[in-house]
Amino acid sequence: DIKDAVIGFFRQRVRHGEAVLAGKKIVVTAGPTHEPIDPVRYLANRSSGRQGYAIADALADLGADVTLVSGPTALRAPAGVTLISCETAREMEAAVMRLPPQDVAVCTAAVADWRPVSEADQKMKKKDRDDVPAPLSLVANPDILAEISAPSVHRPRLVVGFAAETENVEAYAVAKRTRKGCDWIVANDVSLAANVMGGVENQILLITPQGVEYWPRMTKEEVARRLAISIMDWFCSTSDF
Amino acid sequence: DIKDAVIGFFRQRVRHGEAVLAGKKIVVTAGPTHEPIDPVRYLANRSSGRQGYAIADALADLGADVTLVSGPTALRAPAGVTLISCETAREMEAAVMRLPPQDVAVCTAAVADWRPVSEADQKMKKKDRDDVPAPLSLVANPDILAEISAPSVHRPRLVVGFAAETENVEAYAVAKRTRKGCDWIVANDVSLAANVMGGVENQILLITPQGVEYWPRMTKEEVARRLAISIMDWFCSTSDF
Repeated sequence: DIKDAVIGFFRQRVRHGEAVLAGKKIVVTAGPTHEPIDPVRYLANRSSGRQGYAIADALADLGADVTLVSGPTALRAPAGVTLISCETAREMEAAVMRLPPQDVAVCTAAVADWRPVSEADQKMKKKDRDDVPAPLSLVANPDILAEISAPSVHRPRLVVGFAAETENVEAYAVAKRTRKGCDWIVANDVSLAANVMGGVENQILLITPQGVEYWPRMTKEEVARRLAISIMDWFCSTSDF
Repeated sequence: DIKDAVIGFFRQRVRHGEAVLAGKKIVVTAGPTHEPIDPVRYLANRSSGRQGYAIADALADLGADVTLVSGPTALRAPAGVTLISCETAREMEAAVMRLPPQDVAVCTAAVADWRPVSEADQKMKKKDRDDVPAPLSLVANPDILAEISAPSVHRPRLVVGFAAETENVEAYAVAKRTRKGCDWIVANDVSLAANVMGGVENQILLITPQGVEYWPRMTKEEVARRLAISIMDWFCSTSDF
């Protein structure tokens, strides 16, 4: 049908290196967030940022105008991508909300669900060998994916969330898509068995309103290219591309 | 006197690039430790590992047989240094205690004072927007510096500890030397005013049994070279060099 023909035409243009996403504004969030406990201690999430940086790179390769909002990582921003660095979930939220309206949001960041209720001004001191501080009380961080996904005139037309799960990956990811209000979920099996966290390969499920795609195990760069093509296909399927 | 003459002679050999610390076994600990909360979350300390890696490099440059026991960092091990990687305080303790007897220990690692009482097998799930887990109970980690410093036939003859402080730097560092039982403390002002954490420069006080030296502000590489020279001077001052 016509849709398939349009997608086929664009895929051919991608193969010829054309900027098929030129003019499309896409924000990608990436990396962990660090939530300070005191000046030297913090809560963190395991996230190298590699998958998000690779996606920003792949989308920029297709000509998109990419802004990468990143927590602390050891990575360099891909060429042609605008990098905004932040540390905490609240800083990431502020950075994302300050952007001009975006066509697409790809939220790969491992935003900490919780942060310490308060941050100590001075380093907490261990008084003697067995001295232990009071249990660390936590409070919920802003839910950046849910905020971006909320109905609004400026909502990106396509919001892609990520889910890192250690069990019941598909069920959790399907439920997360509904709960967050995003359009797609890229679900990532990070169980010890899959052994991908911080590594170079990813085992991916793509959850869309149409169903669940199981992708073969591939490198994070391949996942990024495939997701960028899926986003291009989605633009082809919408009337206003 | 004779001591100054010996030191002068060795400093001249250093200037000529001689391996003045050849045959000396030195362990350097570096980096932060990460203490798992669940498969994707952990407690961490701000430490780039740069100061420790620079010290390992400077000591290897003087010919020492250097083992670098390092928590997670983004750094590559200096040439000629044996790297042992670890993640938690308990892993670092085991790695250090497993080494053959060392002549010197330089403990720069920012070992977490505390870890979560227990590590969850599965990722903790946020059930709804405001769901918050129970406060995180903590337990004391092994005190690696105190263990290395404890009297024993295998105790390194010189144990150097580090202190990162945000206030009362000298008083805390002097007290720490006594409390830990180490020989020297290299104290580091990490207050926001000094602004050195994760950066390239360090503001150092060296606490020894002889007193306190305030070092001028210098790069971490300069601190490393100066400390390596101080260690060589110390060997010169002992009868069995």
